[in-house]
Amino acid sequence: MSFIATPSSMHFEQALPLQGGASIHHYELAYETYGELNAERSNAVLVCHALNASHHVAGVYADQPRSEGWWDNMIGPGKPVDTNRFFVIGVNNLGSCFGSTGPMHENPDTGRVYGADFPVVTVEDWVDAQARLLDRLGITRLAAVLGGSLGGMQALCWSLRHPERVAHAVVVASAPNLNAENIAFNEVARRAIVTDPDFHGGNFYDHGVVPRRGLRIARMIGHITYLSDDVMNKKFGRQLRDGLELKYSTQDIEFEIESYLRYQGDKFSDYFDANTYLLITRALDYFDPARAHAGNLTRALAASQAKYLLVSFSTDWRFAPARSREIVKSLLENQRRVSYAEIDAPHGHDAFLLDDPRYLGVMRSYFESIAKEIA
Amino acid sequence: MSFIATPSSMHFEQALPLQGGASIHHYELAYETYGELNAERSNAVLVCHALNASHHVAGVYADQPRSEGWWDNMIGPGKPVDTNRFFVIGVNNLGSCFGSTGPMHENPDTGRVYGADFPVVTVEDWVDAQARLLDRLGITRLAAVLGGSLGGMQALCWSLRHPERVAHAVVVASAPNLNAENIAFNEVARRAIVTDPDFHGGNFYDHGVVPRRGLRIARMIGHITYLSDDVMNKKFGRQLRDGLELKYSTQDIEFEIESYLRYQGDKFSDYFDANTYLLITRALDYFDPARAHAGNLTRALAASQAKYLLVSFSTDWRFAPARSREIVKSLLENQRRVSYAEIDAPHGHDAFLLDDPRYLGVMRSYFESIAKEIA
Repeated sequence: MSFIATPSSMHFEQALPLQGGASIHHYELAYETYGELNAERSNAVLVCHALNASHHVAGVYADQPRSEGWWDNMIGPGKPVDTNRFFVIGVNNLGSCFGSTGPMHENPDTGRVYGADFPVVTVEDWVDAQARLLDRLGITRLAAVLGGSLGGMQALCWSLRHPERVAHAVVVASAPNLNAENIAFNEVARRAIVTDPDFHGGNFYDHGVVPRRGLRIARMIGHITYLSDDVMNKKFGRQLRDGLELKYSTQDIEFEIESYLRYQGDKFSDYFDANTYLLITRALDYFDPARAHAGNLTRALAASQAKYLLVSFSTDWRFAPARSREIVKSLLENQRRVSYAEIDAPHGHDAFLLDDPRYLGVMRSYFESIAKEIA
Repeated sequence: MSFIATPSSMHFEQALPLQGGASIHHYELAYETYGELNAERSNAVLVCHALNASHHVAGVYADQPRSEGWWDNMIGPGKPVDTNRFFVIGVNNLGSCFGSTGPMHENPDTGRVYGADFPVVTVEDWVDAQARLLDRLGITRLAAVLGGSLGGMQALCWSLRHPERVAHAVVVASAPNLNAENIAFNEVARRAIVTDPDFHGGNFYDHGVVPRRGLRIARMIGHITYLSDDVMNKKFGRQLRDGLELKYSTQDIEFEIESYLRYQGDKFSDYFDANTYLLITRALDYFDPARAHAGNLTRALAASQAKYLLVSFSTDWRFAPARSREIVKSLLENQRRVSYAEIDAPHGHDAFLLDDPRYLGVMRSYFESIAKEIA
């Protein structure tokens, strides 16, 4: 049984300038905190989320026993990131569909729902918005910033954009940028959404519809890339859904894997916002700290002052270990202190959310050492 | 400059019973032949095609200088499969959209276009249809049956279904069946097509439309899986299409890889039939000779009498070398004669269509040895 989490929201009047040239004002950030901020305000840990997650990182909501946060196995009292020692903050990013201001909300400049007009947001923009939230919470410096996948990109970005505010950056199952194949999968998912007639150029809210077909396809593609080949073969293989007889049909479900993917797609299309999907995958595409340094990651990371933990998973082909090693190498070339764990796990990219004891052990040790530093 | 190829077509009155229980009659098979059948009728080579290909395997059509067949680098006078020595037959499979009877043709039982009523066809059905064509051409036994990818599955199937008719089976970049990930990608592509409102349950011909959105998505997914990560990074990387400035847009093309995929998707949707896409990917899903032997491939391959050449490519993650090795292992366990070449090529699954000199060299040597056997 997990602890009770309580969501909060903070309003920001002042315009936040965005990388793309636009700005956003009168916006809300949904967030949660777990544990207590100590008197020195030195035990704060910020958790950044990936595509399909939110500020609800750990704990359960009152009277909703099955509402565990997405990293509840990692964060909580006595857990690897121990909320008896750390003050943990989860924040929902701008453009998301889980509470912070996003494309389904009213644009204060027009009085109408943003829809397609919601500005493109980047990892840098999210980090800046998170920094303002920390300002308001009275937190100058983070004991650690932590994230997996796209969340890891935010953790890395924090250490470059606000180096004086980050003691440790923990970057899990991430990459210094997306490669061509990653962008390609994102692009196919986006095209599926955008070409769904129910998308209406992003203004589907006005039409009372949701581009469900596109969202389903996007989620199915996503799921394939989150899982390893091995785990898919073990979990589903060529197993038929209904007994042993083939149906000989191109449209009926024949194999278990088809049933699983359709189910995941249907579920996702019930709650995820299509514009959010576009925005978040685009933020992934754009993230590339080396870009401003002619592609030289080592020069890009020279700005950092943090200590790092990098973690990758052997069967993750979406953000392969080689991509984490690029970051490790560039940090070492800058004489930064970096720990790196490559976990031999079968679960593909999804491993960063799962209960691998070696993975959780590495995280526990690292956060114990941070706790000692601030004690 | 290649030689001139001339397409032919053969009509079949008699019903062909299909694995799915249905049958098809009054159908056409489009085919081409290159070279001369020798007096002993012992030099025939059948080439089986994969998803997006046809009977037009080699040569060019008269007055169409850029109309090279899909395996023109492999087959022709003086080429690895030398048409000065071999009588090569290319045949378009049932259900395809390149000349043989398919879902866009009239159903003789109803007088209306087949559409969604075209029966599901399997690799076994294609092989049986090909066998009837060979009967009509007066060819009892093949010097070799040859194919890449899905074409390789047909070559393997030939050696099991008509063992007495096959001297050599050449199986390139193929697999004994699709794994869960392969089926998953096929399923997403099919869902994209089937949920396109212009699909009309497969009867879009009656509505004068084409489910272009779905076909585009299907092709984009396909293209990602045909290429290796390496080749995508080399060819496209994170290169922007328009200069150095980002546009900060979720829908405009930003990266070269997006431009490439959209172009491929558009082109494909201009000429490929949506029902054909469903049928052919389903044939891929269903192929599994071990199925009738409780998953035991060695027992499945006990029926074969042919000699084999298997070829795989190191960076092919769609039909990985490990899958070819499964076939090799099972053939060896049956004491069959098998040669196996694992080509260290950067191009992913596409490599089987490309000009890798080691690959073409292996094929040339193997076909030279076949030519000596029949000389």
